[in-house]
Amino acid sequence: MGNKVTPRTLSGFMELLPQEQLKFDKIVRTLQDVYGSYGFLPLDTPILESAEVLLAKGGGETEKQIYRFEKGDTDLAMRFDLTVPLAKYVAKNYSSLTFPFKRYQIGKVYRGERAQKGRFREFYQADIDIIGDTKLDIVNDAEVPSIIYNIFTSLGLDDFTIRINNRKVLSGFFEILDLSENVTDILRIVDKLEKIGSDAVAKELEDLGASHEQCQEILKFIRISGTTKDVISQLRSYSGKNETFDAGVDELEAVVLGIAAFCVPEKNYKIDLCIARGLDYYTGTVYETTFNKHPEIGSICSGGRYDNLAEYYTDKKLPGVGISIGLTRLFYILSTMGYLSDTTAGADVLVIPMTQDLSYAIGTATAMRHEGIRTQIYFEQKKFKHKIGYADKLGIPFAAFIGEDEIAQGKVTLKNMSTGDQVTQPLEELIPVIRHQLDQSRGEKIIIVRD
Amino acid sequence: MGNKVTPRTLSGFMELLPQEQLKFDKIVRTLQDVYGSYGFLPLDTPILESAEVLLAKGGGETEKQIYRFEKGDTDLAMRFDLTVPLAKYVAKNYSSLTFPFKRYQIGKVYRGERAQKGRFREFYQADIDIIGDTKLDIVNDAEVPSIIYNIFTSLGLDDFTIRINNRKVLSGFFEILDLSENVTDILRIVDKLEKIGSDAVAKELEDLGASHEQCQEILKFIRISGTTKDVISQLRSYSGKNETFDAGVDELEAVVLGIAAFCVPEKNYKIDLCIARGLDYYTGTVYETTFNKHPEIGSICSGGRYDNLAEYYTDKKLPGVGISIGLTRLFYILSTMGYLSDTTAGADVLVIPMTQDLSYAIGTATAMRHEGIRTQIYFEQKKFKHKIGYADKLGIPFAAFIGEDEIAQGKVTLKNMSTGDQVTQPLEELIPVIRHQLDQSRGEKIIIVRD
Repeated sequence: MGNKVTPRTLSGFMELLPQEQLKFDKIVRTLQDVYGSYGFLPLDTPILESAEVLLAKGGGETEKQIYRFEKGDTDLAMRFDLTVPLAKYVAKNYSSLTFPFKRYQIGKVYRGERAQKGRFREFYQADIDIIGDTKLDIVNDAEVPSIIYNIFTSLGLDDFTIRINNRKVLSGFFEILDLSENVTDILRIVDKLEKIGSDAVAKELEDLGASHEQCQEILKFIRISGTTKDVISQLRSYSGKNETFDAGVDELEAVVLGIAAFCVPEKNYKIDLCIARGLDYYTGTVYETTFNKHPEIGSICSGGRYDNLAEYYTDKKLPGVGISIGLTRLFYILSTMGYLSDTTAGADVLVIPMTQDLSYAIGTATAMRHEGIRTQIYFEQKKFKHKIGYADKLGIPFAAFIGEDEIAQGKVTLKNMSTGDQVTQPLEELIPVIRHQLDQSRGEKIIIVRD
Repeated sequence: MGNKVTPRTLSGFMELLPQEQLKFDKIVRTLQDVYGSYGFLPLDTPILESAEVLLAKGGGETEKQIYRFEKGDTDLAMRFDLTVPLAKYVAKNYSSLTFPFKRYQIGKVYRGERAQKGRFREFYQADIDIIGDTKLDIVNDAEVPSIIYNIFTSLGLDDFTIRINNRKVLSGFFEILDLSENVTDILRIVDKLEKIGSDAVAKELEDLGASHEQCQEILKFIRISGTTKDVISQLRSYSGKNETFDAGVDELEAVVLGIAAFCVPEKNYKIDLCIARGLDYYTGTVYETTFNKHPEIGSICSGGRYDNLAEYYTDKKLPGVGISIGLTRLFYILSTMGYLSDTTAGADVLVIPMTQDLSYAIGTATAMRHEGIRTQIYFEQKKFKHKIGYADKLGIPFAAFIGEDEIAQGKVTLKNMSTGDQVTQPLEELIPVIRHQLDQSRGEKIIIVRD
């Protein structure tokens, strides 16, 4: 061969080594299992769509980042989130779907952002949404935080807070103050409270045109805190002034009462009147989830309630509630912080034949697989040291040696690669030993936060 | 809202309704589990790559079909198979990988073919490959058919034949006949034997310039049949004439002896001297798999041995053996033929609360999930008929009614949706009932071939 092409992967595209990929896949499978346990249905939409369909909403920052191109006469685009394809899917298949339609989708999306550390151009999103036909009960908004709770505790993360708010409470409150025009700016300023202090926040609010009295009202409002019960009761003190506000407080109360029924511990959720999410999209409940030890990461799971999923495609009214996890970014952060368990391996046992005739080794491996033990056979003609080194490098927990003695006695020599313990026994006696350790390590969570 | 955009999916892009998606996902998980049971490591490479990297080999039919475009200054392409990304990956990460490197990848690939029924522009491939560093033992070539066997029987298909050949046998034989120049054309003609008969084949071979004697030799050769042992022994009658041929027969014999050690039943594999696969890529063992009842489908799982995976990227010699399943096409065919089990559902139980207070219903659902039962709660305020109809439409096997009586007695009323049987008992007594049926239906294979 002449000139070689340098093998490289595009910047902003995550491509993992096998040990890391095993961890990533373990997270994906945990998510699939948790979503599945609540009856969410899997969905898989194309990565390529007609640009007209994908950009039906049009405009915005996203459009600049989109991968869009023509092939033949077709104007194509790569999906940039999983929400637009869901809207298209539900509108297109409306008459074939059963509502409420609960779906999950874990898939890659594409945004041609400026590449930087921890920012990806190709990344996985893991979304769930519950879509109603015309109506969708508020209890669904309470089930969603219980799913967030279940996701993170199943992964091994306990130290997180699900922050809950309601857009109607916010917009109602600012209507009361006659500041509806500036909601976005006000929330941006208010968000800096912890960083810059209340005086600086008041100053910025006044620069925006708020009166001294309005500033004090805003500061008083966002300082509302305590148990969910306390917060609701403080919010009730504004009742009767604005219908939107009152409806929002009712919803918020229904949601936090519901969450308690779902047995989510008090420490893992709270009302946070400062969160708002995308103001143009969410219309009721909103969620953010923060990793308490690392607030700098921002929200690791966000979402909320929207009135109308698919208004660009259909006249049907399809309200919904959903959440999204930026999986690639979350994985990158957890991996970088060293919070991922290293006990993943691609096989449970490496069978190492030491004779020319492989029948006994193959038979042993086949029997192990029938018992649900992932078993690889080392077939290459190498020195023993090399063979055992293979198990070691791949983190395979057991090696099974099969030499002439083992074959003659109808036994297998099993080595526990981490303790070095070695026993020679008939296979049927070894299987429970292997099983026992595997059950332990399979029970281990993928996220391990060390203090 | 004003004008709507018609929600549509591009032609040649498969997008399934939930019931079908459940089936597709069940196939994917079966493949992941089987591949994993042999110690294959998962791999996930980007869908977008630098066009220079993806087209390193250059030319060919594929290049016309490729989705290629520029963004900024970057010439990008969407992957059109999983082999080129694997070659890039192994060359790029050579020093971080442990060889033999066994990897599986199940992912979407893109080919802008003319769309027609059963042809897809976006489709899943499910590949496994075993890559050696410099050398790779021939036993690996025998393990691969055992994996093919395990895949299809795990999916529920028994009626298939793995056809095995060796490229060296073919090229050696045609060297003996002094017909090396025309191998591709000869194989294309020979392939029509069953359709057009031996006279017509002989005629076409003669038109190609083969002598009468050469034609008779070819026909004699491709008629070699019988047990694998018979075939090997008939091939041995050509021994000593050509080194490549002799090496090929040795390999073929090692492979078929190995397959027997892997306990693949004789009825599921045979030597087929007519199969060759991509002549420019495979260099030794080749495989095709045919569904006996439907030979018209062609091969549903193909692959073989190659000498050098990544010659366009590296000087390292990386021989390998692998197979690929065109999953989207296979799914389309099985689904169209009605060979897919309909017993998949997204939930095992639908809890139907009949009271305002949902706590008991939520508690019941949570307890069921802890027992590994996928449980959805119906939250909407609808008539009873509508609620039970929801379980029916989604094919959920059990409905659990929770009314005032159940709450008062600490019980749950469980309805088996297929038999109509209904019992009211404490949850702990119902769980084994649910489990029992779920174990049965989970044990069911996804492919059911009815005669």
